[in-house]
Amino acid sequence: MAEKKTMLTSRLYGIRDLRLEQMPIPQPGPGEVLLKIATVGTCGSDVHYYLEGGIGDAIVTDPITMGHEFSAWIVDLGEGVEGLEPGQLCAVEPAIPCGKCEYCLHGHPNICPDVRFCGTPPIDGVFAEYAVMPAENCFPLPAGFSPGDGALLEPLGIAIHTVDLSHLKIGQTVAVLGAGPVGLLTAAVAKAAGAGAIYVTEPIAHRRQFALDYCADAVFNPETEDVVTAIMEATGGRGVDVAFEAAGAETTPDQAARVARPGGKVIVIGIPSDDRMLMTASVVRRKGLTIKLVRRMKHTYPRAIRLVQSGMVDVARLATHTFPLERIQEAFELVAGYKDGVLRAMIEIETDMD
Amino acid sequence: MAEKKTMLTSRLYGIRDLRLEQMPIPQPGPGEVLLKIATVGTCGSDVHYYLEGGIGDAIVTDPITMGHEFSAWIVDLGEGVEGLEPGQLCAVEPAIPCGKCEYCLHGHPNICPDVRFCGTPPIDGVFAEYAVMPAENCFPLPAGFSPGDGALLEPLGIAIHTVDLSHLKIGQTVAVLGAGPVGLLTAAVAKAAGAGAIYVTEPIAHRRQFALDYCADAVFNPETEDVVTAIMEATGGRGVDVAFEAAGAETTPDQAARVARPGGKVIVIGIPSDDRMLMTASVVRRKGLTIKLVRRMKHTYPRAIRLVQSGMVDVARLATHTFPLERIQEAFELVAGYKDGVLRAMIEIETDMD
Amino acid sequence: MAEKKTMLTSRLYGIRDLRLEQMPIPQPGPGEVLLKIATVGTCGSDVHYYLEGGIGDAIVTDPITMGHEFSAWIVDLGEGVEGLEPGQLCAVEPAIPCGKCEYCLHGHPNICPDVRFCGTPPIDGVFAEYAVMPAENCFPLPAGFSPGDGALLEPLGIAIHTVDLSHLKIGQTVAVLGAGPVGLLTAAVAKAAGAGAIYVTEPIAHRRQFALDYCADAVFNPETEDVVTAIMEATGGRGVDVAFEAAGAETTPDQAARVARPGGKVIVIGIPSDDRMLMTASVVRRKGLTIKLVRRMKHTYPRAIRLVQSGMVDVARLATHTFPLERIQEAFELVAGYKDGVLRAMIEIETDMD
Amino acid sequence: MAEKKTMLTSRLYGIRDLRLEQMPIPQPGPGEVLLKIATVGTCGSDVHYYLEGGIGDAIVTDPITMGHEFSAWIVDLGEGVEGLEPGQLCAVEPAIPCGKCEYCLHGHPNICPDVRFCGTPPIDGVFAEYAVMPAENCFPLPAGFSPGDGALLEPLGIAIHTVDLSHLKIGQTVAVLGAGPVGLLTAAVAKAAGAGAIYVTEPIAHRRQFALDYCADAVFNPETEDVVTAIMEATGGRGVDVAFEAAGAETTPDQAARVARPGGKVIVIGIPSDDRMLMTASVVRRKGLTIKLVRRMKHTYPRAIRLVQSGMVDVARLATHTFPLERIQEAFELVAGYKDGVLRAMIEIETDMD
Repeated sequence: MAEKKTMLTSRLYGIRDLRLEQMPIPQPGPGEVLLKIATVGTCGSDVHYYLEGGIGDAIVTDPITMGHEFSAWIVDLGEGVEGLEPGQLCAVEPAIPCGKCEYCLHGHPNICPDVRFCGTPPIDGVFAEYAVMPAENCFPLPAGFSPGDGALLEPLGIAIHTVDLSHLKIGQTVAVLGAGPVGLLTAAVAKAAGAGAIYVTEPIAHRRQFALDYCADAVFNPETEDVVTAIMEATGGRGVDVAFEAAGAETTPDQAARVARPGGKVIVIGIPSDDRMLMTASVVRRKGLTIKLVRRMKHTYPRAIRLVQSGMVDVARLATHTFPLERIQEAFELVAGYKDGVLRAMIEIETDMD
Repeated sequence: MAEKKTMLTSRLYGIRDLRLEQMPIPQPGPGEVLLKIATVGTCGSDVHYYLEGGIGDAIVTDPITMGHEFSAWIVDLGEGVEGLEPGQLCAVEPAIPCGKCEYCLHGHPNICPDVRFCGTPPIDGVFAEYAVMPAENCFPLPAGFSPGDGALLEPLGIAIHTVDLSHLKIGQTVAVLGAGPVGLLTAAVAKAAGAGAIYVTEPIAHRRQFALDYCADAVFNPETEDVVTAIMEATGGRGVDVAFEAAGAETTPDQAARVARPGGKVIVIGIPSDDRMLMTASVVRRKGLTIKLVRRMKHTYPRAIRLVQSGMVDVARLATHTFPLERIQEAFELVAGYKDGVLRAMIEIETDMD
Repeated sequence: MAEKKTMLTSRLYGIRDLRLEQMPIPQPGPGEVLLKIATVGTCGSDVHYYLEGGIGDAIVTDPITMGHEFSAWIVDLGEGVEGLEPGQLCAVEPAIPCGKCEYCLHGHPNICPDVRFCGTPPIDGVFAEYAVMPAENCFPLPAGFSPGDGALLEPLGIAIHTVDLSHLKIGQTVAVLGAGPVGLLTAAVAKAAGAGAIYVTEPIAHRRQFALDYCADAVFNPETEDVVTAIMEATGGRGVDVAFEAAGAETTPDQAARVARPGGKVIVIGIPSDDRMLMTASVVRRKGLTIKLVRRMKHTYPRAIRLVQSGMVDVARLATHTFPLERIQEAFELVAGYKDGVLRAMIEIETDMD
Repeated sequence: MAEKKTMLTSRLYGIRDLRLEQMPIPQPGPGEVLLKIATVGTCGSDVHYYLEGGIGDAIVTDPITMGHEFSAWIVDLGEGVEGLEPGQLCAVEPAIPCGKCEYCLHGHPNICPDVRFCGTPPIDGVFAEYAVMPAENCFPLPAGFSPGDGALLEPLGIAIHTVDLSHLKIGQTVAVLGAGPVGLLTAAVAKAAGAGAIYVTEPIAHRRQFALDYCADAVFNPETEDVVTAIMEATGGRGVDVAFEAAGAETTPDQAARVARPGGKVIVIGIPSDDRMLMTASVVRRKGLTIKLVRRMKHTYPRAIRLVQSGMVDVARLATHTFPLERIQEAFELVAGYKDGVLRAMIEIETDMD
């Protein structure tokens, strides 16, 4: 990479306004590594920025490079970096917590108030040829992992953290409301964790079919049936041990509460557009429910690698489409429109370092 | 009690329509005891029935005897009852769970779907001279407990269960939103459990003062100040480890979420009139909160007795007024109107069995 | 079953002294069912009684019918029994907790001090043609379950409870010390619960091979290698997240402590002959370990049925040998001698009710 | 402190061989502070080194400065230190975890394998006039804290961590085996956390009396009575919810197991001389106990400060004796001999910085 000084990046200038630009290649400081980006997934939060220009009070005001689900090749090591070598393909954790606050010190970097997160304003992400990251964010991948697999360890990590929060016991039953990539991965992780039955609700037909093929025991369409009644019937009137809300729709948190059994759990992953979480008070109260909210993930990469390596979770199937960086806007339009059976559209930047 | 065949009861016929009536004295079956009612508290849920004729879909259609926070004297033992003796003053647990469902067997009778609960339609309660209850619901009180203390072990049990749910650690900080009797008892139990600081919000002046005298480190008035800002400032911007929502107002669940620290807990005890629990999604999500709903209580009587006996919690102070059964409507009007500094108005039916 | 008044039973009179005797067929009382015994496993605790005449202070003084891992056909219903029908094949929970003590009420019937347990002195077990059990102990088996599968749900339940106690997270690593039936089932349940790697130690060659074929990632022989060193090397020096002690040997609890990672868990299932649990204090202390002891199981039958039905755990492979009741002594000699690759020898009493 | 280049230290050369020596005053690096030592407690582990020359495989081979329970005045700030000021009196956490290992990142620095710990070979401690520590180890003390109070926050932190591990619920009962300073503080913290009854066993008469005066409901002498029977009787045959082993004697772990109720917890803090933890297998197994080992503490200083400030725990009473650094050997002889009612002998080095 010797002489090259600039790199291609995709910059978001506003709603549906992505531009390709040359930017300076960053240099790694002490404890950091220079990465050649391999593959980057187009996450739902990226789509929020692309379509709406923000998520809640995180607004895109200045042009920004999005992208945070990624794998990369190590190119250069900053001062003092040990245990990594140029040429290694890594999955890269996109969050850089402060490491000093109460939450970091207590082992919860996912709720660090001072976290810097790739591709979240004002921090640039990795829809670009190169990036610099702390060495400890890089997890070298075993043989057999493709760059796409590596990129998908990020949403898989979310799913692992989500199932961790549920304290699911082997044989317990589960509902997943919403069969987008994170909902599907949550279902797959729940299956790998021994879920006794998995019920999935999803309005899009091909996603319902995917869920069935992937790991669901039954799927329901919220546009044509009362999914609460359907899941209650499927469970003999009892409800599920854990209901995962992965849709971010206006009604899904309350549905999740309604399909959970007394004493059950509701785990909310979805990000609603209207920034409201509304449930029926008497429903949640009479069942004495526990509701947990998913904030990113913590400490999941080593386990994510093991799950994929052992075949317990198949992430590759979620990568339904691939595009080069130059055609990233096409990828976003595809994902935003739920077209062509898309789940994750992957941006391939460097597929082979040799 | 030999010859007497009927007893005085207070029957709710409709909104604000309480009538004194003679009813037959019930007879204890096997495993049951006949109780002479000592003292009964006027709980907020009774007030809901009195003022609104129901709570959610639990509607008063037929006349009913309310009342469930009570102490009583054992009068007669049904067949096979052991370990109790006539003349004992007992605190009496008002819930009669089925004992056979999954939740009962797993140790969670508070979420038993088939529970019968004194004074909840269609089960008659104890604003009456006598009642029959299962022997295992009766907890004999040690010397030194008054009938009023015994009655107050019921809301104290709610408060213990509430603090149990929070897994409060010694030295952690707490907010209690709402200083009605259950909010105050929750604050007192949190204090006894080692809470490092307790912040209470409450619109009624005498309740704020009571909270301060009782156990709060600071109190705030939601009608004149922004309580979220006030608690955030009081905690140096961090928020509290546990926020207890004990008001049942429209805005308090969201306030609870806002004053909880990242990774903190929100425990909801309040019963809102509009049956909605609404929180701001980005607030609960970015902090990765855990929200738990309080459904009655479980297994708390022995511990409640110990807390009062040891002086760790002073329940007697909450019994601000007492009335005979004949004047129960006066008591309800007092409580419903938050008049005269009332917290709990106690109905005294039999103060001394000698 | 009309006229028959007596039934064949196998009675233990003393060490290695099993006698076939006719005993009266019991009659079901209210809430009970009369069962025709289908298949009964020969558990390690039975072997303790057979070889040593007791377990700790539970001594066989009078002749007793052993046997508690069993399936049975419902023959007759006592008064008031609902939800069961004659002819159903059931897995039957062998423990009859008191249902009234603190531990039963709190959902922990496995530690009920007043439990009656089939085949534990002085309660007769089910190496017999008939038995009477409470209706709630009977779990009707779905189509496709053999009587042998049903009997094996009991040790599977132990394994489920064991893994429950560990709070194993998906992807975590596990060691199982001892590959007898319970150790193997624990390994299988851990696998089904998403264990990332499973290391098994076992001195008997065919059991090591079985473990490898069944679910282990690696097996080690404690008679020829230092298993602590071997597991530490296999885990890159870290140790496992959870170490299950399923051998009951003198040295295995300490080995379990040594192979657990800092902050890890040791779950002890094995029953040692010398009634001592000894660990090195500085090892358990410096790693800040948590040690949990397995006492029977609780609430596991519905989940055990689901695990077998879904194919997540294959119990049938453990039933290596079968014998009729008349040849039960042969079965015990086989099991006690670890001969012929035996894991569980099953006593088949009634294979088909038609 | 300008010109002074050397400082007085107390160096352990071997068993009972403490020598006063001049050593160079260390200089703070980036992120570190130079501290003038205020008060240092003589911990039981120091006494192990003093009397036996080591703890398990941690052996004193070269001369070492012991001492780790301490308060200190900030003298000078290294590069980049913010939030601290010269002249502040601080409690100082003696452990310097690596901050990079799995356990540190997961929030468990107390089990960091690469921790450096003041006064544990080969790291020098603070029986000296000065020391350098990382800024984040320093917790400025509010007005009203004496140097001795500050030093005692270290053993108080151990006690807080100990009670944290027990998940004690308000009103639960507790036994503490051993009334040395850590046992007493554990009892005091359990009391502040709402323990319903506290039973203490201790062979030394004045410590039993201290425990009674301090917070115990009853005390027992293991040299003259069967403490297991005594505690079982005191709890009506039930046993305690949590048994804290704080004696490090050969028999106390088994006693702790015997006095715990079924399903109860045993928390082991004591450090036995023979490095064995032995319990009766059938006792721990039949009750299904959970045993946890205390390894130092984590994240306790802010809470420890709050407990002392609020008056919930009185640490000052434990400081029974004080000595200047020059007379440290006298202090150790006093403590080692359990003389004169000693609990903690405090070494006062700099009582006032003005």
